[in-house]
Amino acid sequence: MEFAKDFPIWDKLTKEEQDRLRGVSVLRRIKAGTTLHHGTSDCLGLLLIRSGQLRVYTLSEDGREVTLYRLLDMDICLLSASCVMPNIQFEVIVEAEKDTELWVIPSCLYKELMQSSVAIANFTNELISIRFSEIMWLMDQIMWKSFDKRLALFLLEESALEGTTSLKITHEKIANHMGTAREVVTRMLRYFQSEEMVRLTRGAVELVDVKRLEELQEE
Amino acid sequence: MEFAKDFPIWDKLTKEEQDRLRGVSVLRRIKAGTTLHHGTSDCLGLLLIRSGQLRVYTLSEDGREVTLYRLLDMDICLLSASCVMPNIQFEVIVEAEKDTELWVIPSCLYKELMQSSVAIANFTNELISIRFSEIMWLMDQIMWKSFDKRLALFLLEESALEGTTSLKITHEKIANHMGTAREVVTRMLRYFQSEEMVRLTRGAVELVDVKRLEELQEE
Repeated sequence: MEFAKDFPIWDKLTKEEQDRLRGVSVLRRIKAGTTLHHGTSDCLGLLLIRSGQLRVYTLSEDGREVTLYRLLDMDICLLSASCVMPNIQFEVIVEAEKDTELWVIPSCLYKELMQSSVAIANFTNELISIRFSEIMWLMDQIMWKSFDKRLALFLLEESALEGTTSLKITHEKIANHMGTAREVVTRMLRYFQSEEMVRLTRGAVELVDVKRLEELQEE
Repeated sequence: MEFAKDFPIWDKLTKEEQDRLRGVSVLRRIKAGTTLHHGTSDCLGLLLIRSGQLRVYTLSEDGREVTLYRLLDMDICLLSASCVMPNIQFEVIVEAEKDTELWVIPSCLYKELMQSSVAIANFTNELISIRFSEIMWLMDQIMWKSFDKRLALFLLEESALEGTTSLKITHEKIANHMGTAREVVTRMLRYFQSEEMVRLTRGAVELVDVKRLEELQEE
């Protein structure tokens, strides 16, 4: 496995920086369902995903979840190394949603390189900016979009991620992604079913009218 | 006016970087009510506030506002120079809420220095991280806190910012800060008044029971 090929700004690093990064980064295989990072209590390192899928989410004080974003092939998870950036003062949880193969880049080395390499410092800037933009998009959705539109969008995105219109997902799980209660999800899904946009079966949601879901979400 | 004293990481810059920054940065006095930056259409530069108060907010598609954060003395506004960071893909508006004196650091020079100075690149990282954390806090409030608690907190924060318990602010303006409709604000303020926590007069809200507002907000 070649770390050099996977790391985005490899050519901008000095030979010494390359050797150090390659020397300490470890390839790991993670089973779906594993929690990789939990709040600021650990500082695992940057995660560079070769294949698979991670979910980054937060918890409210009383334990409710909301999904912030997903990380897919070649994405980098920076918040699992939040100790690298002392001004990041919020906690996220990172879990593998699918079997995932990733490079772990240790925080301590990365932090050191950030202080000496302008390429790495600016690359870090880019990574934070991307996530910041995703959160702003999410906040926009939460503030201004009604729940039916958000749910339609969620179902369409899941369908694209999974490559199927038959989603094996519980109402509870959808609620955890969207930061709401299970009852709210169930009520809206039943409405979608009465409108013949989805069909509900035990543990699954089938999208039967993708076109109307798309129209609803875009309204 | 000494730019060197106001710029946070002055001592980490080379003599040449210091001279270039000092050479192009301009001190400006802005009247309260002025819009300084509007979306990505302009790229004014970084704003280093000597005194005064800026409000950074976003607009929904149909023109509703929500305040993201305030910038006070010695804060730096980075998003008014969003062209410096190509991955920032959201738009904010920056307006002066009070008469404000600030340094404008031109985007083009700053961008250039970010690419050559590891100190400036990491300083930029810190600035983004602080704002990112503030947005995460706000999202947490919006997702999980009921409106009465958010409104109580807003009134207390305004009172602290203005140094008075008698706030000259319209219900419309509060709604714009909080990303909601005027009617929702009016209804809750009337409830607060019936509970003797505030007194409402034309164009003003007087906090009469700060202790109870604090308790409500902390619940």
